[in-house]
Amino acid sequence: MPLFENVALFGVGLIGGSLALDAKRKGLFGHVTACSRRAETLDAALQKGIADKTTLDPIECAKGADLVVLAAPVSSMEPIAKAIAPALERNTIVTDVGSVKGQIVEKIERAIPYPSRFVPGHPVAGRERFGTEAAVEGLFAGKRCVLTPTKTTDKEALRAVRALWEGVGMKVLEMDPQRHDRVLAATSHLPHLVAYALVEAVMRARETDPDILDFTAGGFHDFTRIAASSPDMWRDIFLMNSSHLDEMIDVFSSALDELKKVIGSHDGIELQKKLEEIRRVKDQIENMRQVIVKFENSR
Amino acid sequence: MPLFENVALFGVGLIGGSLALDAKRKGLFGHVTACSRRAETLDAALQKGIADKTTLDPIECAKGADLVVLAAPVSSMEPIAKAIAPALERNTIVTDVGSVKGQIVEKIERAIPYPSRFVPGHPVAGRERFGTEAAVEGLFAGKRCVLTPTKTTDKEALRAVRALWEGVGMKVLEMDPQRHDRVLAATSHLPHLVAYALVEAVMRARETDPDILDFTAGGFHDFTRIAASSPDMWRDIFLMNSSHLDEMIDVFSSALDELKKVIGSHDGIELQKKLEEIRRVKDQIENMRQVIVKFENSR
Repeated sequence: MPLFENVALFGVGLIGGSLALDAKRKGLFGHVTACSRRAETLDAALQKGIADKTTLDPIECAKGADLVVLAAPVSSMEPIAKAIAPALERNTIVTDVGSVKGQIVEKIERAIPYPSRFVPGHPVAGRERFGTEAAVEGLFAGKRCVLTPTKTTDKEALRAVRALWEGVGMKVLEMDPQRHDRVLAATSHLPHLVAYALVEAVMRARETDPDILDFTAGGFHDFTRIAASSPDMWRDIFLMNSSHLDEMIDVFSSALDELKKVIGSHDGIELQKKLEEIRRVKDQIENMRQVIVKFENSR
Repeated sequence: MPLFENVALFGVGLIGGSLALDAKRKGLFGHVTACSRRAETLDAALQKGIADKTTLDPIECAKGADLVVLAAPVSSMEPIAKAIAPALERNTIVTDVGSVKGQIVEKIERAIPYPSRFVPGHPVAGRERFGTEAAVEGLFAGKRCVLTPTKTTDKEALRAVRALWEGVGMKVLEMDPQRHDRVLAATSHLPHLVAYALVEAVMRARETDPDILDFTAGGFHDFTRIAASSPDMWRDIFLMNSSHLDEMIDVFSSALDELKKVIGSHDGIELQKKLEEIRRVKDQIENMRQVIVKFENSR
C-alpha cells in the first residue's frame, strides 16, 4: 500500500514534478491529481507521467486527498491554501516545498482548517533549470530536506512527511522556521543575490567597454550560472526573506569593504592573512560536509 | 626542430609546469631548464618530466636560452627579470604568464636589455588547484590566451609566442595591457574578491549561529570553490590591479545596493523586471561565447 493513496499536487515544476515521478516510481504515491494555472502545463505533466489526472480547479484537486503538496511559487502558497481550505478533511496532511519558511508557515497555518496537519518543508534540491520540462527522476537522492514543524504541528503528520522525503532518498533534518530562513539567507539567498549583482556590474562596465562580454573568463561563469535561475522564484524568495537577507547583505558589504580597504592600503601582509583565514573557513566547510555525509551514510 | 631549442622556465607551478609538459610532448620545446626558489619544488618538476635540468641560480637558468618563460607569482616577475638581465642575449625572447599586465609589462620592459623581445601574455587557464602537483597535460586546450604587446614589442617575437600558445591548443587574442586589466578586473578579479567576501560573511554570521556551517547549500559551494584558489596569487593580483578592481568594486556595490533598495521597498514588479534584465544579459553572454567558440573552431 502506498504511503499516500490520493495525492493532490499543486505545481508540477522542477520540485513538484520530480517528487511525483520518484514517489510514484517507488510506490510512495498512489493516485496523483495535479493542479496548475495553465492547461498546457498540465498536459505536459500528464504526458511526462507526473500526474494521473489533472484539473484547473483547486477544490476538485484537493477533494478526497490524504496528502496535499504545495509546490507552486512561494507567493502562490497562501492563495492556494485559502482556495482549498473548504476541501481539506480532518486527516488530510498538507506540506509545502517553499525555499522560505517563516512568513509562509504562519500564513498557511492561518489559512487552513486543521493547522496541526500542516508540515512545512524545504527540499534543498534546486538547479538552474526549472519548470515541468526540468523535472527528473532521482533529483533528491543524497540531498537534504529541512522540515520546520511549529508547536502546532502534530507528530504523526511530521513522521509521514519525513518518511516521504526519506523515501525519495533525502537526508531529513528539522529546524525552527526562523532559523531556517536565517541560515538560508546566508548560505543560499545572499549568494544568489550577489550573483545577480555581479552580472549587473559587468553589464554596467560594458557601457565603457562595449566588448567586455566577449571576454568573460574564469570565476565569472560560476556566477552567471547561478544567476540563471528562475526570476519569479527568486523575486519571491528575496521579498519573503527580506529581513534576514537585508541583515546578511550588510554583513557581506562590510566584509567586502574591509577587503577593499586592505587592498587600497597596499598592505600585502594583512591581505594575505585575510585571504588565508577565509580559505581556512572554506576548508572547514568542506571537511564539515564530508563528516556529515559520512555520518549520515553510516546510519 | 622544436619552436624553441633551449627554454628557461621560471616557476614550475600549474601554468609553467603544464606548459612545459604540453610543449615538450608536442615538440615545441627542446631542452627545458627550470629555476625556482626551493630545491624540493625543482625535484618534483624533474620527476614529473617538466624539466630536463634544474637550478636555483637564475643566471645559470637563463644563459643560452632562446625562450625565457616567467611563470612565477606576479610579484616575483620584476625581481626575476632584473636578476636574469645580464644573461639575456639579443635574440632571447622573454614572455610571461601573469594574470595582471599593465604594471608588470612596464616593469619588465624597463628591467631587461632588449625590451622589444618581451611578449607579455596571459593564458587564461586557472583552476582551483595550484602548484607543481597540479600541473597536467592538456590544461590549455580550447581555452584563451591574451597577448598584450606594446608599441615596443617586435612582430617576430610576437609571432613566435603566439605559435607556442596555439601549439598547445589555445585561442590567442591580442589586447592592450590596460584594457586586459580592466576587462579581467570585471570578469575575473571582482568575482574572486566577491567570493572571498561571501565566505567571510558566512564566517561572521556564524558568530550568532554557530551551526551555520553545518548547512551550506546550493549556490554557496560554487563560491567557496572559487575562494579556494591560492591566497598568494590572489593577493598579488588584487594589489597589482587595485585601481581597476577598485572601480569595479564600486560598480558592483552600487548594483547590489540598488537591488537591496528594491527588495526593501517590496516592489515585486520592479524587482522581477531587474532580475529578468540581468538574466537576459547572462543569456547574451552564453550566446556570445557559443558564437565565438563556433567562429574560432571554424577557422
